[in-house]
Amino acid sequence: MHFNLQRTSGTPLYRQIVEQIRDGIESGGLTPGTRLPTVRQLAQELGLTRLTVHSAYTELQSLGFIESFVGRGTFTTVPPHATTAAASAPTAPSQRAPLAASDLPRPPDVARPQRRLAELMRLTEQPALLSFAQAIPSNETFPTKEFRASLDTALRVSGALGYGPIQGEGALRQQVSALLETRGVRAAADDILIDGGAQQGIYLALRAFSRPQDTVVVEEPTYSGAIELAAQRGQRLVGVPVDRDGIDVGALERACEIHRPRLLYTVSTFHNPTGVSLGAQRRAALLALAHKWDFLIVEDDVYGWLAYDGAAPPALKADDSFGRVIYLASFSKVLCPALRLGAIVAAPPLLFELAAVKESCDLVSSTLLQLALADFLERGCFGPHLENAIALYRARRDAMMDALKKRLPKCDATMPGGGFSTWISLPPGINERDFFVEAVDNGVGVARGSAFFHQPRPEAYVRLSFAAQPVDRIAEGVGRLGRLLRTQLEQRAAAAWRANREASPLV
Amino acid sequence: MHFNLQRTSGTPLYRQIVEQIRDGIESGGLTPGTRLPTVRQLAQELGLTRLTVHSAYTELQSLGFIESFVGRGTFTTVPPHATTAAASAPTAPSQRAPLAASDLPRPPDVARPQRRLAELMRLTEQPALLSFAQAIPSNETFPTKEFRASLDTALRVSGALGYGPIQGEGALRQQVSALLETRGVRAAADDILIDGGAQQGIYLALRAFSRPQDTVVVEEPTYSGAIELAAQRGQRLVGVPVDRDGIDVGALERACEIHRPRLLYTVSTFHNPTGVSLGAQRRAALLALAHKWDFLIVEDDVYGWLAYDGAAPPALKADDSFGRVIYLASFSKVLCPALRLGAIVAAPPLLFELAAVKESCDLVSSTLLQLALADFLERGCFGPHLENAIALYRARRDAMMDALKKRLPKCDATMPGGGFSTWISLPPGINERDFFVEAVDNGVGVARGSAFFHQPRPEAYVRLSFAAQPVDRIAEGVGRLGRLLRTQLEQRAAAAWRANREASPLV
Repeated sequence: MHFNLQRTSGTPLYRQIVEQIRDGIESGGLTPGTRLPTVRQLAQELGLTRLTVHSAYTELQSLGFIESFVGRGTFTTVPPHATTAAASAPTAPSQRAPLAASDLPRPPDVARPQRRLAELMRLTEQPALLSFAQAIPSNETFPTKEFRASLDTALRVSGALGYGPIQGEGALRQQVSALLETRGVRAAADDILIDGGAQQGIYLALRAFSRPQDTVVVEEPTYSGAIELAAQRGQRLVGVPVDRDGIDVGALERACEIHRPRLLYTVSTFHNPTGVSLGAQRRAALLALAHKWDFLIVEDDVYGWLAYDGAAPPALKADDSFGRVIYLASFSKVLCPALRLGAIVAAPPLLFELAAVKESCDLVSSTLLQLALADFLERGCFGPHLENAIALYRARRDAMMDALKKRLPKCDATMPGGGFSTWISLPPGINERDFFVEAVDNGVGVARGSAFFHQPRPEAYVRLSFAAQPVDRIAEGVGRLGRLLRTQLEQRAAAAWRANREASPLV
Repeated sequence: MHFNLQRTSGTPLYRQIVEQIRDGIESGGLTPGTRLPTVRQLAQELGLTRLTVHSAYTELQSLGFIESFVGRGTFTTVPPHATTAAASAPTAPSQRAPLAASDLPRPPDVARPQRRLAELMRLTEQPALLSFAQAIPSNETFPTKEFRASLDTALRVSGALGYGPIQGEGALRQQVSALLETRGVRAAADDILIDGGAQQGIYLALRAFSRPQDTVVVEEPTYSGAIELAAQRGQRLVGVPVDRDGIDVGALERACEIHRPRLLYTVSTFHNPTGVSLGAQRRAALLALAHKWDFLIVEDDVYGWLAYDGAAPPALKADDSFGRVIYLASFSKVLCPALRLGAIVAAPPLLFELAAVKESCDLVSSTLLQLALADFLERGCFGPHLENAIALYRARRDAMMDALKKRLPKCDATMPGGGFSTWISLPPGINERDFFVEAVDNGVGVARGSAFFHQPRPEAYVRLSFAAQPVDRIAEGVGRLGRLLRTQLEQRAAAAWRANREASPLV
């Protein structure tokens, strides 16, 4: 087939390949069972990298448009109603192309990553897109000047470019200890482990305290990075619903009776993706359940400092009298992701195990960045930075909620008191994947609801993150989503009307 | 018991606790089966952090001096010849102290980390020690001024403090692509994944391409970080001996016949811990074996640029016509550890899987540090830096080999053509642990040979790393080790003479 790729269009090349193959299939130009070139052949033909072509094929496979067969090749899929002749095509060819994806040794039952995060992060690489897809901080908030000064100071420390202690730099742990008091967490510098951010923290906790066969409870919906990680480990996940007051503790207790979980993962304050916070009574109930049913709580508090309507509730860890909470803080959302720094607070024997796993993963986090962050905190730069960031994000949250009310009136949206995202229920009859794909076609990135569930759901959701878009772009983007939704609802109504007209009477 | 801790002695506090409890046991002051205070109690009593006391207890446990029993407490161990009364002590007490290590939930069969690396890295935290224990670069070589300029440049890039692409910054991959040609590795920027250094690279490869039940072949001896990681995963390891020409490929083929490995981990150039390099014929044989027996090779090339006697052999990856080598480079040894940056080269489908695992571990590496390193490389700062570093390390290697010849004549030492370490066989009759402990008592850090084997060995070895010590300190340190060795050999001779004198005739 012929491809027409625009290198300057703003649409990533892998996505252009996806779209053109999809269009070929949908227009009938590519018949079911057509053999596609190997990754290597197509990359060579188009002058692209093999990774780009591989990304496109992976996306097409996850969308169900193509299928790969070991030793045979990659083919457009055969819909269930296709003719037998077409259906037999994939089994015919037998030549092996050297170095095609399927030829390389890979253990057959190592879990294939689900690439939920990859989908979200790839959208970042598409600068023309007006994206609500990633829950990321705004570049504008990064305190570049102050941080440059801190880097200069850090570079004057002997050994700043060397290895440091596994637990993290003492100077940074001291500063984090003071900072965590604002979340109600009382932790001495020695009760803190510096890590590479919350994603690493979740990973360390899962690795240190659960075997793949152990049950881990997650909120439904929950952070896609946690689901992906659990899927890669082949971990048994049990979901417990979240409502406007956070995780349903009654449902959790029933889940405990049946599944006896080892760990529970929660974003208890400004939950991702919904933005809700766990109510005070439920917090107490959750801690009591952890003690009663003997499980550990991994509390992901990356948004805890980003409260837009008065103070955030204190962290679960603040009331952790049984020592069951592994508390994860991170500077990626509240300061800047490029630090790759977070902190874990846990009872010393747990901290010791977590440090051992951290060490075998990547030894230590960067001494230079740790010392620079310690200096930044010590000079009191965090408070003013946070104040500015909160003012900016609050205005964007308000703009988002206002636009949703005006332009997406048929959708049910959560009101986040902090954090970066609101969670939208799409009206009945809207197909989530179609909405996602057409939103991107209209230049607006959204995060599909399905990325936040560990198993398929019939309802259609999207998560919209507002932190990285200016107020006027938020209005513009939500406006486009509103028009798209109206069009899809009208198409649906028309289709229903046609179906109704053609239906036979039930006499 | 009474502790006498010196906070300014240069001996870490955890080690002082270890020594004083050990002394108490050896002097008979602490009888076998004595219950020790809980970690929390002792920490409170001594005004120390619980992590410090926990470290001491862990060390004592690994040395066999104490034992912990769930729900009962921690006790000095009962030697096999102890009386029944003493032996029954550990089972007597039944009170549960809240938050003692053993009270907290931990799955019983999650592998306990072996803390080989921790032992090595803790020694770094002891500044008074003249340490040959860590294979780390010298602070003096860090190009602080040039790197500061690169950080300044990087900070001017929009989004330098944000998230970047999962695969790593394009600008850095471009520079790494050019740099890898010096190792014979031809990789386009798109065939490179930026990671957090070789430890993370090993981890990603194990996670992506092996299940715990799969066999992984390692050199014997090998890098302790690889062993520790495999132990934590519960991975099946098979060791194949290394001689002066690298891994024994005959023994490897026999191991393949029996064990059908999935992966092989090798430091093929300037091997850690021995410093030897794989011969050219063995390189070809190893690649052929990987193809014949269908396994992947994880090539750890962190020392490949550090050649002191002419050019290093090209990487295995240079001749990887079957696409079986996952090549790991790192800037931690050759530039500075605080970058936490390395690069992986692998066939695209493998690279894709590795990127997915990297993402679920810690999302991405620091954008800021990636951009700064790209700038540093682009400005041509790497070549001159490397030249200086090599001159410095070569002088230290020569000083080490000279001192060994003069002061440790009874030991067999390898001659490293590059890298940071030499590997020493201690003479018969010397106990490796005693040598290690007394070396530290004499102010000299060494790495125990046992840290580099995945199962116990009767022979006694130490690894001495010379890169971080100036020439005069090397002479001084090896001199102290020489005196210690003489003393231990004399004690042994005297003990043998006494034993001989007291022996009964065999009439």
